[in-house]
Amino acid sequence: MTIENLSCNKSFGGWHKQYSHQSAVLNCTMRFAIYLPPQASTAHRVPVIYWLSGLTCTDENFMQKAGAQRIAAELGVVIVAPDTSPRGEAVADDDGYDLGKGAGFYVNATEQPWQRHYQMYDYIVDELPALIEAHFPVTDQRAIAGHSMGGHGALTIALRNPQRYTSVSAFSPITNPVDCPWGQKAFAAYLGKNQEAWREYDASELMRKVTEHVPALVDQGEADDFLESQLKPEALVRSAHESGYPLQLRRHEGYDHSYYFIASFIAEHVRFHAGYFNK
Amino acid sequence: MTIENLSCNKSFGGWHKQYSHQSAVLNCTMRFAIYLPPQASTAHRVPVIYWLSGLTCTDENFMQKAGAQRIAAELGVVIVAPDTSPRGEAVADDDGYDLGKGAGFYVNATEQPWQRHYQMYDYIVDELPALIEAHFPVTDQRAIAGHSMGGHGALTIALRNPQRYTSVSAFSPITNPVDCPWGQKAFAAYLGKNQEAWREYDASELMRKVTEHVPALVDQGEADDFLESQLKPEALVRSAHESGYPLQLRRHEGYDHSYYFIASFIAEHVRFHAGYFNK
Repeated sequence: MTIENLSCNKSFGGWHKQYSHQSAVLNCTMRFAIYLPPQASTAHRVPVIYWLSGLTCTDENFMQKAGAQRIAAELGVVIVAPDTSPRGEAVADDDGYDLGKGAGFYVNATEQPWQRHYQMYDYIVDELPALIEAHFPVTDQRAIAGHSMGGHGALTIALRNPQRYTSVSAFSPITNPVDCPWGQKAFAAYLGKNQEAWREYDASELMRKVTEHVPALVDQGEADDFLESQLKPEALVRSAHESGYPLQLRRHEGYDHSYYFIASFIAEHVRFHAGYFNK
Repeated sequence: MTIENLSCNKSFGGWHKQYSHQSAVLNCTMRFAIYLPPQASTAHRVPVIYWLSGLTCTDENFMQKAGAQRIAAELGVVIVAPDTSPRGEAVADDDGYDLGKGAGFYVNATEQPWQRHYQMYDYIVDELPALIEAHFPVTDQRAIAGHSMGGHGALTIALRNPQRYTSVSAFSPITNPVDCPWGQKAFAAYLGKNQEAWREYDASELMRKVTEHVPALVDQGEADDFLESQLKPEALVRSAHESGYPLQLRRHEGYDHSYYFIASFIAEHVRFHAGYFNK
């Protein structure tokens, strides 16, 4: 498990760095970004927030636009931002922005031509944390967060792995992919016709069933163009109500789907996660 | 002087907006971005910081990457980010990234083929503030700031117009363009062979001569790849020393030329400017 440093920028007294590595799970070379706060050292390991980005993004969007480094430096947490799909010429793709490269949907594909590379669920849950914990001064405390497709990824991964994450948060997540066009297109391609398999990657389906509760915060802008057609936070609220899940879902008047929304509330998310890490 | 709204995003309780307008000075359609903090209203006008970006940038880089909205919202100041050159098919250009579109250098060109459109000095000093003050709830208190080529722009414009700006700041400015490759290439093209004309747009030349002192803050990263070849802050320090100019120039170990550096210190710059606005 070797990693290669690609870039390095000092930021709020800590370091933003990009790395590439050969992923055994995804069968391709992957890139990720990491923010290391000034407190992090081998003598003082710190917890990690994994950030999962939305459709079309890479490891760069969050690090450049969310402004999270300030609060990560203040609170002493690492942030890791992986890419949103396998990459490279050998990797299957689609003409749409919402399938294939940049649109891995954080699932393990079972269908062709996707299966060989599109194993983003296993990459995020297992391979990437193992890599981070082997190479950087972090503890094994993890939180997970994301935006849109990445909000769906963060919620489903935390709900399915409550022992691996101390908290989860999302901005504008796709909450019920089995019931929206983005989810239906991607799940049909990656998972095939069996809708039982789809439900294992649907936050609203999972939240209705789980009994172990990872603290969860969701922020949704009310001026989000995708709110009614794709995101459907009411499905998640309904599931939380049915199962007694302690979901905090906040709606924000006037905010849209962009990083301007994320930047406005990211400090509250990082504080939320830091509150569940053991110091 | 009409303006057309192009986009609108709620941000930290205020609004990020992009507009286009027909510039009489530049003879083309221009775009700018504005951040309006929640305090700004026709009943409560607030001061403005003009941000001048560096080579290759548009109105978008600063607004997306600097994270300035948080502190602008806290302190109640407007930020305006213009484009870095005239734009459009009719506008002269060059194959290099450091001349022509995206590289206006905030000067009034006197040479061909640049003269008709490349009048960025007049655009920033006169036309744009008149437009902003006619259309938005702002006072006539102005500060000016910028990065790299835009740091050069901010410093030279403030030094030449001390009555129009209450303070000036810069990140990684080109401080002595008459003595560096970026400046020599651009000034030769835009201003011709007469180096007397060049000196009117050189911060280090101007700071040696001026007698009216606009408060000035400059931040420079010591790991900046352009530090020795292009930026040369020691020239500005020498001029300030010669003329007794109260320049605050800070060097920061480890920081580079990127927006990760700007984001790390932008709050201090906004606070610096806010300290000179009359409340």
